[in-house]
Amino acid sequence: MTSQPTTVSVGYETLRDFIQSALASQGLPEGDAFKVASLMAEADMQGSDGHGVIRLPQYIKRIRAGGINKHPQIRVVHERPGSAVVDGDNGMGHLVVSQAVDLAIEKARHCGVAWVSTRMSNHAGPASLYSRMPLQHDMLGLYFAVGNANHLPPWGGTDMLLSTNPISAAIPGAQEAPVVLDMATTVAAYGKVKAKAKRGEQMPVGWMIDRQGQPLTDPNRAGEGFLLPIGDYKGYGLALIVGLLAGTLGGGAMGRDVVDFNADHVSTTNTGQAILVIDLSAFGDPAVFKQAVDKLVGDIRNSERLPGVDRIWLPGEQSHLRRERYEVQGIPIAPGLLTELDALARELNITPLLQESPA
Amino acid sequence: MTSQPTTVSVGYETLRDFIQSALASQGLPEGDAFKVASLMAEADMQGSDGHGVIRLPQYIKRIRAGGINKHPQIRVVHERPGSAVVDGDNGMGHLVVSQAVDLAIEKARHCGVAWVSTRMSNHAGPASLYSRMPLQHDMLGLYFAVGNANHLPPWGGTDMLLSTNPISAAIPGAQEAPVVLDMATTVAAYGKVKAKAKRGEQMPVGWMIDRQGQPLTDPNRAGEGFLLPIGDYKGYGLALIVGLLAGTLGGGAMGRDVVDFNADHVSTTNTGQAILVIDLSAFGDPAVFKQAVDKLVGDIRNSERLPGVDRIWLPGEQSHLRRERYEVQGIPIAPGLLTELDALARELNITPLLQESPA
Repeated sequence: MTSQPTTVSVGYETLRDFIQSALASQGLPEGDAFKVASLMAEADMQGSDGHGVIRLPQYIKRIRAGGINKHPQIRVVHERPGSAVVDGDNGMGHLVVSQAVDLAIEKARHCGVAWVSTRMSNHAGPASLYSRMPLQHDMLGLYFAVGNANHLPPWGGTDMLLSTNPISAAIPGAQEAPVVLDMATTVAAYGKVKAKAKRGEQMPVGWMIDRQGQPLTDPNRAGEGFLLPIGDYKGYGLALIVGLLAGTLGGGAMGRDVVDFNADHVSTTNTGQAILVIDLSAFGDPAVFKQAVDKLVGDIRNSERLPGVDRIWLPGEQSHLRRERYEVQGIPIAPGLLTELDALARELNITPLLQESPA
Repeated sequence: MTSQPTTVSVGYETLRDFIQSALASQGLPEGDAFKVASLMAEADMQGSDGHGVIRLPQYIKRIRAGGINKHPQIRVVHERPGSAVVDGDNGMGHLVVSQAVDLAIEKARHCGVAWVSTRMSNHAGPASLYSRMPLQHDMLGLYFAVGNANHLPPWGGTDMLLSTNPISAAIPGAQEAPVVLDMATTVAAYGKVKAKAKRGEQMPVGWMIDRQGQPLTDPNRAGEGFLLPIGDYKGYGLALIVGLLAGTLGGGAMGRDVVDFNADHVSTTNTGQAILVIDLSAFGDPAVFKQAVDKLVGDIRNSERLPGVDRIWLPGEQSHLRRERYEVQGIPIAPGLLTELDALARELNITPLLQESPA
């Protein structure tokens, strides 16, 4: 008997609990496992499906290989009223960064603005997970990170000294959903290249070039080339600045020191991230600001469109609508991923994501 | 008798003094005229020749039309230990922003980081003029501004609600020149389009599109189309975020409220800018940081190149070398610009830039 593979959907809690039990099975303290699992499931909820549960097998591999400290002493190593450096002691990135964001929120309340850098952190999921955290406090967030593998050479070069170093910003509206930007400084993130390969599709010209500078469109040859930055030399400059701010400033890895965590599960990555939090009330009445955001959002959404364009989107709007849909319908888990997670559950001897698998 | 127009070169002081006398002739207080003139000449020194003395005729036009407050009460309207909003009272942008940067430097010394927004400011020249100011204090600077004319529609749209909203970052090295990024969030700045028209050249595909979404390459038809953002929807997102941070947050104009200061010399622009200053010593030993920057700069400069590439540049490096050259050789003033400045000198009844004009 054969059955067509179909995409199943799971609720947020189901997904979170599965991730938690996987992490706890490897010796992560229950509270930490819950925290990481909540953030990973939240990543899937907002549609950042390259950064949610799909990463679980890799995280588990690293934990088992000893590449993660399961009992980190996350601590502040430098501090001023509006700034800090948080040393993550090689703990799970989600724990390190969320602690850094909490500290930044507290500091911004007093100083109006706060910047907290991490070092000795790890991959922490999608950037917008963290830039969004200040929103509920009537604050806005900016987040910068050093990517966990170098795929980008300097402009004109072939030596991959830079990563896709992402930038995220989250800015609250009043009635409107927040404006949330979450972007790699490359034209395509590397995950999109892998997805093209998986689907047997070619990449558009402009995503990658080979070592002769020629367009590379076969995603199976991705290893022979590198990603292109947005806006040519401008994106190279942005990736470099983001890396200096998120990595070098706080003592995190940058340039040649960046560990490719897809290939190496043991070496300490010394990942660096940075969060900037701004308290709206330090700049006037937050309600006035949020109304101005709504007005601008409305002006943009209702503005005149190019022929053939159905709708003008705001950054983060599609993710917002997806989250609302997933809250009702559940989070879709692709058949291939479900198979992988089932195998992981057997390996870890935990209850699978779907207790009764379809016959 | 005809003479070939040649590019003349002038020293920094000569250029500064000329600008100062032009501004003072219009009733700007001597100290303010000197300050603005110093910053404008500095813009030319670093090769930002679209933002230096070339803007003088336009500034004078606006001052004469009553579009600038010659005696502004620049004051702090909101303040926290690490943040402030500076109301520029419609004074010259250079005065407003440099005061904002001074305040941010002072605040960062205590808080580790500071963010100061301006409102009721005006065009202030190149972004890197301000992001660089913290460098001499072992601090790094980030600068954001709302451009003074909307040339960019939202992605998929035709309604120019956004400007080229620039981002600048300046990060110090030890022996190396600072890494200085200064970029519009559009593929080309509008000034580059105007320069193409002046030289009778076509624009490359990718700079602009027309209202049907087709490539627009004739710079004389620029009015029929709009600029394209870097990285498509990503650059649109960046321009929007920069505008929200530099404009909306501090109460400056954004979206439909932005005044096209090329066409309108009277309406108050309510320009908003924002400066973020980070004190390196709040994050560890500044010397260690600057050595890490040098190491990275060296790794990038010496990394392997694509065929046909002679050199890999760091952001700001060409500007740095240009400045060194101009210090020796003077700042080149193109013949067309010199003619314009001579006419301005006659109009204002001040000594021309070159006292003895060539016969």
